[in-house]
Amino acid sequence: MSSPEPGAADDVRMRGFARRTPVETAWRWIDERVQRLPGEVVSIWQAAGRVLAEEVICSRPLPAFDRAMMDGFAVRAADTQGATALNRLPLKIVGRAWPGRPAGVDLNVGQAIAIMTGAPLPAGADAVLPAERAEVEGETVWALDEVPPGRNVGFRGEDVAEGACVLRSGRILRPQDVALLSAMGRARVAVVRQPRVGLVITGSELLPAGSPPQAFQIADANGPLLAALIQRDGGLPRFPDMRVETAHSQKKDNFLVSSPLAAADDPRDYVLPDDPAAILDALLNTSADLLVVSGGSSVGQEDYVPQLVAQHGELAIHGVAMRPSSPTGMGRIGGRLVFLLPGNPVSCLCAYDFFAGRAIRQLAGLPAAWPYRSVRRKLTRKLVSQLGRVDYARVRMTPEGVEPVAIGGASLLRSVTEADGFVIVPAESEGYPAGADVEVFLYSPFLGDNMAGSQAKSS
Amino acid sequence: MSSPEPGAADDVRMRGFARRTPVETAWRWIDERVQRLPGEVVSIWQAAGRVLAEEVICSRPLPAFDRAMMDGFAVRAADTQGATALNRLPLKIVGRAWPGRPAGVDLNVGQAIAIMTGAPLPAGADAVLPAERAEVEGETVWALDEVPPGRNVGFRGEDVAEGACVLRSGRILRPQDVALLSAMGRARVAVVRQPRVGLVITGSELLPAGSPPQAFQIADANGPLLAALIQRDGGLPRFPDMRVETAHSQKKDNFLVSSPLAAADDPRDYVLPDDPAAILDALLNTSADLLVVSGGSSVGQEDYVPQLVAQHGELAIHGVAMRPSSPTGMGRIGGRLVFLLPGNPVSCLCAYDFFAGRAIRQLAGLPAAWPYRSVRRKLTRKLVSQLGRVDYARVRMTPEGVEPVAIGGASLLRSVTEADGFVIVPAESEGYPAGADVEVFLYSPFLGDNMAGSQAKSS
Repeated sequence: MSSPEPGAADDVRMRGFARRTPVETAWRWIDERVQRLPGEVVSIWQAAGRVLAEEVICSRPLPAFDRAMMDGFAVRAADTQGATALNRLPLKIVGRAWPGRPAGVDLNVGQAIAIMTGAPLPAGADAVLPAERAEVEGETVWALDEVPPGRNVGFRGEDVAEGACVLRSGRILRPQDVALLSAMGRARVAVVRQPRVGLVITGSELLPAGSPPQAFQIADANGPLLAALIQRDGGLPRFPDMRVETAHSQKKDNFLVSSPLAAADDPRDYVLPDDPAAILDALLNTSADLLVVSGGSSVGQEDYVPQLVAQHGELAIHGVAMRPSSPTGMGRIGGRLVFLLPGNPVSCLCAYDFFAGRAIRQLAGLPAAWPYRSVRRKLTRKLVSQLGRVDYARVRMTPEGVEPVAIGGASLLRSVTEADGFVIVPAESEGYPAGADVEVFLYSPFLGDNMAGSQAKSS
Repeated sequence: MSSPEPGAADDVRMRGFARRTPVETAWRWIDERVQRLPGEVVSIWQAAGRVLAEEVICSRPLPAFDRAMMDGFAVRAADTQGATALNRLPLKIVGRAWPGRPAGVDLNVGQAIAIMTGAPLPAGADAVLPAERAEVEGETVWALDEVPPGRNVGFRGEDVAEGACVLRSGRILRPQDVALLSAMGRARVAVVRQPRVGLVITGSELLPAGSPPQAFQIADANGPLLAALIQRDGGLPRFPDMRVETAHSQKKDNFLVSSPLAAADDPRDYVLPDDPAAILDALLNTSADLLVVSGGSSVGQEDYVPQLVAQHGELAIHGVAMRPSSPTGMGRIGGRLVFLLPGNPVSCLCAYDFFAGRAIRQLAGLPAAWPYRSVRRKLTRKLVSQLGRVDYARVRMTPEGVEPVAIGGASLLRSVTEADGFVIVPAESEGYPAGADVEVFLYSPFLGDNMAGSQAKSS
């Protein structure tokens, strides 16, 4: 509008935050309210990286039968006693055994059965004479060595005994865990359900991601940012389905239910205007496990979200003693946790990682802590911070150590794309001098000396 | 069979490996033959974690216009000169500006425009007076402070200047990179195509994964193992489509082309028997970028794969000086690299990580090095290794340091599920004494002191 309306000037007298909650208090609030979601049964082909939601007990011994561990001859160890290259002992070859195809005959005194690695050991045999210690002449094999009982035999149950608990609930399944499940004959396994995260992106000035910015509108960055972060943390992001909302306004679940976002087409028209009714509808009418709202989180006059959450739910925390991201809020609405993240993309990233991500990771059964690898490095320049607030200081790795990224302003995305990671300065610290040893959380799992070191070694 | 056939005994006189190639030689062979795949264009919603295949240049300044960085009043800085709480200076409010909704009027001497954070700065204004340093009376705002030109203004192009290269080709895209692409108005981006990896699982004794083991048959563990590893390394595993093979034997591409395996249903009947014709067909008739064969890789008589590769392609390396996994091979067939991995699941995992994974990661544009985080730890027990071969020693983290996993035998999956990681003992070493400081590669990104440290700190 081009001229002031009645009360317009009054609107911009900002209410400041009455007080800012310490970061640790906010963490405690979250940790007391989230627990991992119940399990769902998935195919072992889709289980790697998921969090196990059952105690896996071995229902049959693995392996299920004694088997040859080398190519050679199944024998009775006693028959080879005293054999040497100079005192070869003859055995009669009476059969052969392949993996999956047993010999079909038992072994008697003075006999041998040709056997391949992995083949079931014939009844009567108790050892395998390696092929390179045997000489074959027609149907006779000459033992050049003696083998003690059990030599080169893999015994039934030696990998996993029947009834043993092989994988504990809560474990993040590795490729080899899935292999073990498969070897035990398991086709499916119970894993923690992935949290569905309702993503409410607000801002009348925003065009949906993928739109070329036009005039004074800007393209949303937080939708793609948060969708990627949520997926990294084991969650399934979903947007309000605006089309459905119009057609079926009574519909309880107005979120896309189809599939994780990554597999879906590009979402369109997902941005909500700064309209309290539309935002409230999105906050209440969803079947998500947790809600993340971007924008409208502060105390400005179009910042409707805190008020909506306070009126229709509980606004437990609003304003956190940190920078950036101080206008962050959290509470409950419609029985779910809701996180109010600032619209500024750098603040949004930081607030997500500090708070929303922490909750999502715990719902998913993952560790609450930072999902970033950390290394210790020397600061090459001093890092100044304000007493009383936690600072999320973006830093860059250098050959000499680590330095604060000079790009000022939490609104500048380049400060997090050009940074290699961040240092957290606690509220009670005024920062660190040059030369101080600090813990650096790295944005990329592929950066830092560990990988560089291994790479050098392996080339 | 129950009795020896002619020549049966002869079969089991094993040819040993003539010589074993050093691990470094095999790595060099791989590294000289792989380069990252060309790019494909994907939605930014699906770009996080992918490897950038273009230089991203900013085609318009970001932000595209000067904007308020605080809620308050857009002013001419000169009009506030000398203002203090005791010397309030009056300005006439002539409009208001919201994000996405400019004031629509220019600012003249003695005027102010109410403005919200992110709103475009009106023409004529050069600073923003913060709301808390202003007092409003009707249509007048009193400045309690002077603001210098540029104060609280975010300038056009201050995040990214037009024409700047913001992201370099080869970068693994982070959530914030995707946010920057979105803010720049990009809907799509070129990323390195994911390598399609043909997975040939052989073994007449194998039942497909998910089958309860029966009699002397065992359930395949390597299919799910390799599928998970390949996906971790950015590849798309696919199995020979056995059903299609029968119906359309002339079909050039007999691999499932539908989708990455994780999104597909459980594969069934994917195991190939130890039948040279079936294996050769799978090796030749596929559109994969790289082939991984499990089983039949050694010098036993049903180990057909090395011979098939040698006859119809090139078997460059067969037998590697390492343990486990010494019966590993690599070469080319049908114009693609092929990796021959032992059927033993632990050897299969190890050989994949040493060789096939190294090739797949490089095709995907990822670092060649281990995809495992490493930490340094003290050995609490000695680690013995044989001179002349590289040892892949599974270890377990303890409060005191790290110890070798006592479970012997490379056939025992529990040796890799109960281990926290591994230590690589070089060929020229006989191992390490207790107390030695060793580099441990961790199977899980969530284990180890970094995460534990942060967790303690953040709770």
